[in-house]
Amino acid sequence: MLVFKNPTDRGQRIPDQPGQSVLAALACAGIAIAAPCGGGGRCGKCKLHIQTQYPFTAQELSLLTPQERSAGIRLACCVPAAQADRVELPHREQAQIVTEGQPQREMEAPAFSLIEIPVPPASITDQRSDELRVCAAAHLALSPAALLALPDALAQSPQRLWALCQDQSIVQVFAHPVRPLALSFDIGTTTIAGYLTDAQTGAVLRQQGQLNAQHSFGADVISRAQHAQTPQGLAALRTCIRRQLSDMAASLLQHDDPTAVAGVSIAGNPVMLHLLLGVSPAGITRAPFAPVFSDAKYLPAPLLDLPFTQAQVRLLPGISGYVGADTVAAVLSSGLHKTDQLSLLLDIGTNGEIVLGDRTGLRACSAAAGPAFEGAHIACGMAGVAGAICRVWLLDGALRFDTIGGIAPAGICGSGLIDAVCALLALGIIDESGAMLEEAPGVAWEEDELRYYLAPGVYLTQSDIRQVQLAKAAIAAGVFVLLKEAGKTPAQLQRVYLAGGFGSHLTPQSAMRLGLLPSVPSERIVLLGNAAGAGARQALLDRSAWAQCAEIAKMTDYIELSLRRDFSDLFIEQMMF
Amino acid sequence: MLVFKNPTDRGQRIPDQPGQSVLAALACAGIAIAAPCGGGGRCGKCKLHIQTQYPFTAQELSLLTPQERSAGIRLACCVPAAQADRVELPHREQAQIVTEGQPQREMEAPAFSLIEIPVPPASITDQRSDELRVCAAAHLALSPAALLALPDALAQSPQRLWALCQDQSIVQVFAHPVRPLALSFDIGTTTIAGYLTDAQTGAVLRQQGQLNAQHSFGADVISRAQHAQTPQGLAALRTCIRRQLSDMAASLLQHDDPTAVAGVSIAGNPVMLHLLLGVSPAGITRAPFAPVFSDAKYLPAPLLDLPFTQAQVRLLPGISGYVGADTVAAVLSSGLHKTDQLSLLLDIGTNGEIVLGDRTGLRACSAAAGPAFEGAHIACGMAGVAGAICRVWLLDGALRFDTIGGIAPAGICGSGLIDAVCALLALGIIDESGAMLEEAPGVAWEEDELRYYLAPGVYLTQSDIRQVQLAKAAIAAGVFVLLKEAGKTPAQLQRVYLAGGFGSHLTPQSAMRLGLLPSVPSERIVLLGNAAGAGARQALLDRSAWAQCAEIAKMTDYIELSLRRDFSDLFIEQMMF
Repeated sequence: MLVFKNPTDRGQRIPDQPGQSVLAALACAGIAIAAPCGGGGRCGKCKLHIQTQYPFTAQELSLLTPQERSAGIRLACCVPAAQADRVELPHREQAQIVTEGQPQREMEAPAFSLIEIPVPPASITDQRSDELRVCAAAHLALSPAALLALPDALAQSPQRLWALCQDQSIVQVFAHPVRPLALSFDIGTTTIAGYLTDAQTGAVLRQQGQLNAQHSFGADVISRAQHAQTPQGLAALRTCIRRQLSDMAASLLQHDDPTAVAGVSIAGNPVMLHLLLGVSPAGITRAPFAPVFSDAKYLPAPLLDLPFTQAQVRLLPGISGYVGADTVAAVLSSGLHKTDQLSLLLDIGTNGEIVLGDRTGLRACSAAAGPAFEGAHIACGMAGVAGAICRVWLLDGALRFDTIGGIAPAGICGSGLIDAVCALLALGIIDESGAMLEEAPGVAWEEDELRYYLAPGVYLTQSDIRQVQLAKAAIAAGVFVLLKEAGKTPAQLQRVYLAGGFGSHLTPQSAMRLGLLPSVPSERIVLLGNAAGAGARQALLDRSAWAQCAEIAKMTDYIELSLRRDFSDLFIEQMMF
Repeated sequence: MLVFKNPTDRGQRIPDQPGQSVLAALACAGIAIAAPCGGGGRCGKCKLHIQTQYPFTAQELSLLTPQERSAGIRLACCVPAAQADRVELPHREQAQIVTEGQPQREMEAPAFSLIEIPVPPASITDQRSDELRVCAAAHLALSPAALLALPDALAQSPQRLWALCQDQSIVQVFAHPVRPLALSFDIGTTTIAGYLTDAQTGAVLRQQGQLNAQHSFGADVISRAQHAQTPQGLAALRTCIRRQLSDMAASLLQHDDPTAVAGVSIAGNPVMLHLLLGVSPAGITRAPFAPVFSDAKYLPAPLLDLPFTQAQVRLLPGISGYVGADTVAAVLSSGLHKTDQLSLLLDIGTNGEIVLGDRTGLRACSAAAGPAFEGAHIACGMAGVAGAICRVWLLDGALRFDTIGGIAPAGICGSGLIDAVCALLALGIIDESGAMLEEAPGVAWEEDELRYYLAPGVYLTQSDIRQVQLAKAAIAAGVFVLLKEAGKTPAQLQRVYLAGGFGSHLTPQSAMRLGLLPSVPSERIVLLGNAAGAGARQALLDRSAWAQCAEIAKMTDYIELSLRRDFSDLFIEQMMF
């Protein structure tokens, strides 16, 4: 039994299974330590202070510096939990997770309401059941949870009840008026956004962003899917995400009444939703990339281990194995499916989801951008946390930058990377083919590669530039395929919607200069923030929006890029800056 | 921690809560010890061998014989669990529980089926989800449980699946053909009958009767309802019945595949169904006797802690707080609601449920017979177990009897009691007013009361005769009220259906002689056995029968006897033999 010590608490006892690493034991206890390689001892990211007599492994000797080793830093994936006594987090920054999105639109058909029901008393001449008397008075049916709550509510208030209603059913009954609540989540591979809303007005009461605790099982969907190949691995991932949603729900609710939660909606990419349900996402990761499910789901909350017996959980529908409920939610939130104007929606992460069209029809594809824009596979790359260079520009021919938190630069995040490459192009340090010019000022050979220092200790390498080229080419080629299919040109785009954390932070001008975004007048660019979260909220609270989700899924043609013979050509073309 | 030793096992460790009696601790562990008084130290029935240093209580000194006390027999309700080391059952007989009933009729609209589905493979040009390909091939929707099972089934059998279907939905999928199964229960206050059926043919594969484990909380619905007045008490009763249903399901399934259970149906009296759901039955036990619910319920099995994620549980509808789903099921099984012939249905237990009518309409009432027919409140009364006198008759003016199991008589059960009273009437030992004639041969004063010995140690007292009179008067008056309401006479009755254990065992001629049953030619009497169990099975397996349940509830006028001014008169009239 090891003890896990958070900076904010007095220590938590963590049970372990035979053979488990510290990383795995913490993950089972719901404590996520980022481990992009999935605990394979390759990435060296799962560093913790661990009190143990266990000798350093070969991986630790290669991935930890002598200073780290002498300071008691170990890799959580290398130390058996049974050999560890006390585990502490080293100082870590929280990533900035974008939860803000479009505010709730005017609701066309509110899904939830609170009604007051005058209850006629039972008498010897009216021996109808309590249920029948309430249902007849309200002209609505009672859900099982409401039935279970009925005797207590009537005992406290025999003459009138307040009922939380959804469609033609009473979700829950109360002896006093309550504010109907709703919970919505957007489950991303890297981050999870959660929202508590007033179910009648749609106002966001509280919101929260967290790193996805499944991080311990790998950074991307492929490594998660690999981990889910065994029943035990699948169960561990399922438990992990369900526990995190429960914890987030508890934290969002604070002192609010959990029995007033009228409904829950969840958007997310297909692999995340498969793991949430506990079905194998293996089919998504290999040709022909068919998911187990993509349609919307209505599930009792307890089936997902969410502690709301009265609430139904709705999973938004997806479109394909790689264009999921999060994209449908983002489209819903953008209004793309209802506009007359030709519009493009981009949600760029490890995969870039791209949707093009207007109310007459949509086309969508998914382009494998790789993790460069999230700071991975970049020499000095880091997530968007304090110390990351997030913005780079030229002033009088000299390079300037901002860091998150305004502190000394420790690395560079995705938006900074785009800006920096743009600036290096302008300075002639790299050319249009992406080659770093050895003779350019500030460029030097170090450790067998060309480097350009942005700040002391923070530099870009030739290989970093190549990663950016590959990522942007994938996205840009995807956009061109969709435009070509639609018979349109970039100039005809009336709106370019950018969804998600990366899209919210990047400098559109830099992205256009690099060719990551098609060139359009900047007023046509709309930053949506967390559009998937906003869409998840709308879909739950507005019956009309819920119906639109299915319409969006239906009206969208999914284009499988791997089938397109023109994609490789476009991809190579788009490698150029 | 005490250890409970069954004759058949090596001992089970029973945890206890502070202040719990042995009886309560055993009940919480799912071990039911009959305690008709509900653990109040009054009935003296919860006798166990208990190793303890705890001194005898005043109740034990009064209720246990010196022989029992010196043999280590204690009352489980009197000994604190924390003071007990080892607990053993004394030799106990299992009551004969009637589970046999009418066989399944020809099904008009089978609810369940097994279909074979050819599954078109996913391909790069058909990237639809597995769910969509299966649903499109079957023209049916997939339940959440079936979705969860889909990846494994397709991995084993990619080209074709077998699906267990209910209505328009696939309940479960398999990689191989299975026999669809169904479970049905009739929950009585005293006994529970469980059935495993072939869901397609209706054939009963296995059946089982058990004493209701809630017996530890009292013998009748009133004492159970009293126990359920606190949230803890209600939870204990709920846990008790749910655990017993789970255990019975496991035992009925034996080696059959639990994932092939397509559905579960449950009939029972209203208090039992309230306790199963965990809603307070308090309303039923006090005027105006309104239940919390009486309509049919559709519930996911996990909500009742039944381990069948794929199966829906159906609770049959009831009619009132005292005429419940068990009566509806019995009517369904009898066909009373579809016949042209005026028919009477009687299910006599502690309460007698009485239904009169034909296909044009039904009337029902509930008469409080008391527990005399179950052997309670009778000096030598006992349940229908080995040694009980179950049949009494006259041969050449002399009294003859049979016992269950043919062993030496130890007491008398309900059917024996009816026969015995009838014989005593014929012998002139009691008169039409129920008075035992002091001067009659064989009658003697003993311990301040008149007794008549049927056998050594087994006798009837004057007070026993009074109990029988009260019980039969309640039933007979109920029948007369229904006949009067319908404007009919006993002679017009074409059929008299007897449902339930007591009804299956009694001698109809004796019951008619005493006036418990209206006098009809004996060919008009039909013994249904466990009609509620048979009805519960039909309602689940045949959609037409399920629809008929709601019709039966709707077409039945409930007559509240306590409202009838004529009931008391009829009751007093019917006291006479």
